[in-house]
Amino acid sequence: MHPYRTHNCAELRLSNAGETVRLSGWVHRKRDHGQLLFVDLRDNFGLTQCVIDISSPLFQKLESARNESVITVTGRVIERTAETINDKLPTGQIEIGVDELTVQSTADMLPLQVNADEDAGEDIRLRYRYLDLRREKMHEKILLRSKVISSIRSRMIDQNFTEFQTPILTASSPEGARDYLVPSRIHPGKFYALPQAPQMFKQLLMVAGFDRYFQIAPCFRDEDSRADRSPGEFYQLDFEMSFVTQDDVFAAIEPVLHGVFEEFANGRAVTPAPFPRIPFDEAMLKYGSDKPDLRNPIEIIDVTEAFRGSGFGIFAKQVETGAVVRAIPAPGAGGKPRSFFDKLNDWARANGAAGLGYINFADGEAKGPIAKNLDADRIEQIKAATGVADGDAVFFACDKALAAAKFAGTVRNKLGDDLDLLEKNCFRFCWIVDFPMFELDEDTGKIEFSHNPFSMPQGGLDALENQDPLTIKAYQYDIVCNGVELSSGAIRNHLPEVMYKAFAIAGYAQSEVEERFSGLLSALKFGAPPHGGSAPGIDRIVMLLADEPNIREIVAFPMNQKAEDLMMQAPAEVPMERLRELHLQLKLPPE
Amino acid sequence: MHPYRTHNCAELRLSNAGETVRLSGWVHRKRDHGQLLFVDLRDNFGLTQCVIDISSPLFQKLESARNESVITVTGRVIERTAETINDKLPTGQIEIGVDELTVQSTADMLPLQVNADEDAGEDIRLRYRYLDLRREKMHEKILLRSKVISSIRSRMIDQNFTEFQTPILTASSPEGARDYLVPSRIHPGKFYALPQAPQMFKQLLMVAGFDRYFQIAPCFRDEDSRADRSPGEFYQLDFEMSFVTQDDVFAAIEPVLHGVFEEFANGRAVTPAPFPRIPFDEAMLKYGSDKPDLRNPIEIIDVTEAFRGSGFGIFAKQVETGAVVRAIPAPGAGGKPRSFFDKLNDWARANGAAGLGYINFADGEAKGPIAKNLDADRIEQIKAATGVADGDAVFFACDKALAAAKFAGTVRNKLGDDLDLLEKNCFRFCWIVDFPMFELDEDTGKIEFSHNPFSMPQGGLDALENQDPLTIKAYQYDIVCNGVELSSGAIRNHLPEVMYKAFAIAGYAQSEVEERFSGLLSALKFGAPPHGGSAPGIDRIVMLLADEPNIREIVAFPMNQKAEDLMMQAPAEVPMERLRELHLQLKLPPE
Repeated sequence: MHPYRTHNCAELRLSNAGETVRLSGWVHRKRDHGQLLFVDLRDNFGLTQCVIDISSPLFQKLESARNESVITVTGRVIERTAETINDKLPTGQIEIGVDELTVQSTADMLPLQVNADEDAGEDIRLRYRYLDLRREKMHEKILLRSKVISSIRSRMIDQNFTEFQTPILTASSPEGARDYLVPSRIHPGKFYALPQAPQMFKQLLMVAGFDRYFQIAPCFRDEDSRADRSPGEFYQLDFEMSFVTQDDVFAAIEPVLHGVFEEFANGRAVTPAPFPRIPFDEAMLKYGSDKPDLRNPIEIIDVTEAFRGSGFGIFAKQVETGAVVRAIPAPGAGGKPRSFFDKLNDWARANGAAGLGYINFADGEAKGPIAKNLDADRIEQIKAATGVADGDAVFFACDKALAAAKFAGTVRNKLGDDLDLLEKNCFRFCWIVDFPMFELDEDTGKIEFSHNPFSMPQGGLDALENQDPLTIKAYQYDIVCNGVELSSGAIRNHLPEVMYKAFAIAGYAQSEVEERFSGLLSALKFGAPPHGGSAPGIDRIVMLLADEPNIREIVAFPMNQKAEDLMMQAPAEVPMERLRELHLQLKLPPE
Repeated sequence: MHPYRTHNCAELRLSNAGETVRLSGWVHRKRDHGQLLFVDLRDNFGLTQCVIDISSPLFQKLESARNESVITVTGRVIERTAETINDKLPTGQIEIGVDELTVQSTADMLPLQVNADEDAGEDIRLRYRYLDLRREKMHEKILLRSKVISSIRSRMIDQNFTEFQTPILTASSPEGARDYLVPSRIHPGKFYALPQAPQMFKQLLMVAGFDRYFQIAPCFRDEDSRADRSPGEFYQLDFEMSFVTQDDVFAAIEPVLHGVFEEFANGRAVTPAPFPRIPFDEAMLKYGSDKPDLRNPIEIIDVTEAFRGSGFGIFAKQVETGAVVRAIPAPGAGGKPRSFFDKLNDWARANGAAGLGYINFADGEAKGPIAKNLDADRIEQIKAATGVADGDAVFFACDKALAAAKFAGTVRNKLGDDLDLLEKNCFRFCWIVDFPMFELDEDTGKIEFSHNPFSMPQGGLDALENQDPLTIKAYQYDIVCNGVELSSGAIRNHLPEVMYKAFAIAGYAQSEVEERFSGLLSALKFGAPPHGGSAPGIDRIVMLLADEPNIREIVAFPMNQKAEDLMMQAPAEVPMERLRELHLQLKLPPE
């Protein structure tokens, strides 16, 4: 017989009754019934109940094994009596009558309880992560993460992608967030940087002719912590493809995302492919956001014309000076008491708005201060445009276009939550496309890149030379799920002459571009294929699937919010000798 | 029609003749036949020949496209004439008559030739790696690497392993090689370290109850470069299992290694599982090495007794003072001229030995200086022990046991190469088992750990308390293929009391052990399962399969031997401001 186990703790069934088996695992819970001691034995796979009679010479030994000790039991599989069957447990029809017992490892007093849900606090949980990870929900979430990543991998391979490893000790990026630096011992005064993303390398792999690349890539940013971002490292599904259009990129990755969400949706609905493609301008107008939560049925409508020259002077005056008015319908809010609208008004003020105007359609009337100052035609116009009916309300955002859009988007989210309008148990995907290539800096009056300067402008060199820059769109796209941006992506600009021109529009001389991006530019001068890709965040995908807003709950060994590993005691001081080797000395801030 | 391609460059066959197709790729080679210009178009998948007639308005444009430019051609698939069929190319029965041509990206003068095998030198190759990687052999080796890793992954999953990610920003190890350090911005004066291996984390995952872990794990060591080791980072197939014996570990990983080698062996033979298990003592005796190349048929034999008190005084005297004599048979060397033996003698001297004695069995006689001084019985004894016959030779190593074993092993390797004895086209695996737990430091007379202090001693606490430490073996094992150590592994010591005792034997006080290894020890005190694993080197596996002795040939973007990335210009200087943020200042060595 195997010294540790013949079966795992989720394996035995009624059909095994009468067999002599051996199990190993952790003492999950003990129940002492006087004459009988029951022990739930736990391993990675599940629980099996073990039982011992007080007459057994092993009774004392088992009774004294503290919870979370590791034991091996050998015994007979016994059918449970009808009243003791546990339907919730796959092994609930049997128990093990203990004949032999080995304590493999004894547990000290536990700093946190494994078999209970009580919250021991983040510090204790991270310091004793190996105990925290034994808890059922944590164990499941970490296994879910593994399964999701494994599923993504095989789906990428099914789409003819090949996985490559790119360097982790590499060069500092000229752009983006703060790099982690690694001092070189061999080259005094020089540093490697950990990659913020393998962006350069994946483009170089395309230039090297590898057609379809992917990597479950560790990425590093020395940024302050957020609930949805780990300090330190995170993972992304980094991918890139050659000889593709934007539609090819979508067609390659949609089956992967849809497939993996379906696989782990557990009954939740998933947007079928092809996912809706929403132009950036439309998204800003209809949802007030470039990462709209499509579970929210509210669509924002422009009603500027209904207010132009109207009796509602506050809006009418602003419209005269170029403002727009956006209407946010609130289905079912017509019946809400005055306090509901007052609270929203307070919320709007707390969020920097002057207030939140509304019309309340109730009892066949249009109510509220705005309605009082609008004639019936205009109210009818708003009603028709927004599609609201008696029993609904409409809120308004009046400001310059971008500010009005953003505020309307915030109101849309707030109403979605407050009125409980969000579709339940579903994952709603969309692509946001046609991002503007450039934007105007309102303060300086200068033209700047809107997003990624390395994306290909739609219309190419011709557009850059002949079109108003502020009307040029980029082949740049975001994938959004339930209001969470999973990733930006783009068809890359693979043509140096187009890159020089794009940077010239944003005010950069060719020599400056050549100096700052020499690595990429020189690679593009030896035959580069048209290429594009994206890099959906693995952690965010797992967070969505696990319905878990805190990234530290879906990472096995995360750092805390102060970027410390409490279990491994990192970061830590290092011996002087190590610093000397690295040609460094500390320059500590005053205490 | 797709703007870039309807097919890839390895796809078209005779059955496509007459179709209009579009291909994109790199101009691999041009052949100008006066009236006709032939272009081999290359992509990730293969080559397709394109042809254009001088009468075409596109002739000039195609002719002037420099090699490695990226082009898109549209045209008819034409059957080649019988005399122009190329049997070596899957697309060799057809060619494309070019009707449309788009140059997607023009190539500058190339610093290295993609379509030729000439060696541009490592500096140029690494600086322009994206060009170097386009070369057929490099392209194949990097794709092989990807396929091998992908195959390993699915085989590990088939063996019920689950892949986990462990932190890359972590704590410095108290042991082993030099860590790469990462200064913390938030914690002045403190540093993270990049993991030399995820050893602690994989053990903690077992303590956390995850049963079977694996990871294609990036590992980092700040060590000087070697042919078979990258400066900086390398990958290992890191795995660990709970509730297992050493045999369980072997049984889990043998199908993975055997399977992946079979899959990519390309006709080369692979040792079937179970692989031979050779105790360390036996390996040192028979092969003079703990990483024997089993393709070499030579087995070393102890012939000390044949020399004890013999007329060959040099050996006889040494035997009296405790030396041993090892015989290394050299099949077929009996017919070699005197110069063969003289050269080997010179080689031995150059390698620090006093010389290399031998007996040469030729023409029915035993020849050479040793034979002259041994009586016939003793010669017969040696002949019988080593199994040599007329036409063979035997070499001898006489020294203290360990030195004699090592020297005999070197001679065995040398003879295997010089006599061309190695079995061809095969991968010969073995496990080396039963490594000694402790060894005697000859200089200090103190007992030290032989290998890994954290391995479980065979016999456990009882052996440590009651056995001569130098006779205690560890549950520690190496996997070896063709003389290359792929990995060490062990059943870990999961019992703090056994660890304290083992360290006590090696001269460490309990308090010292607790201070140095507090992280691991505290985890083992809350219920740890018996567990073990190993971590075969991914790069070494790929090097064996690619038959490539230089690790930089099987890594897409390696650093050079001075730990520089010539393409990305890493490491590099960083702005003062970044150092200030990290609470560091440089302390450069004098010029």
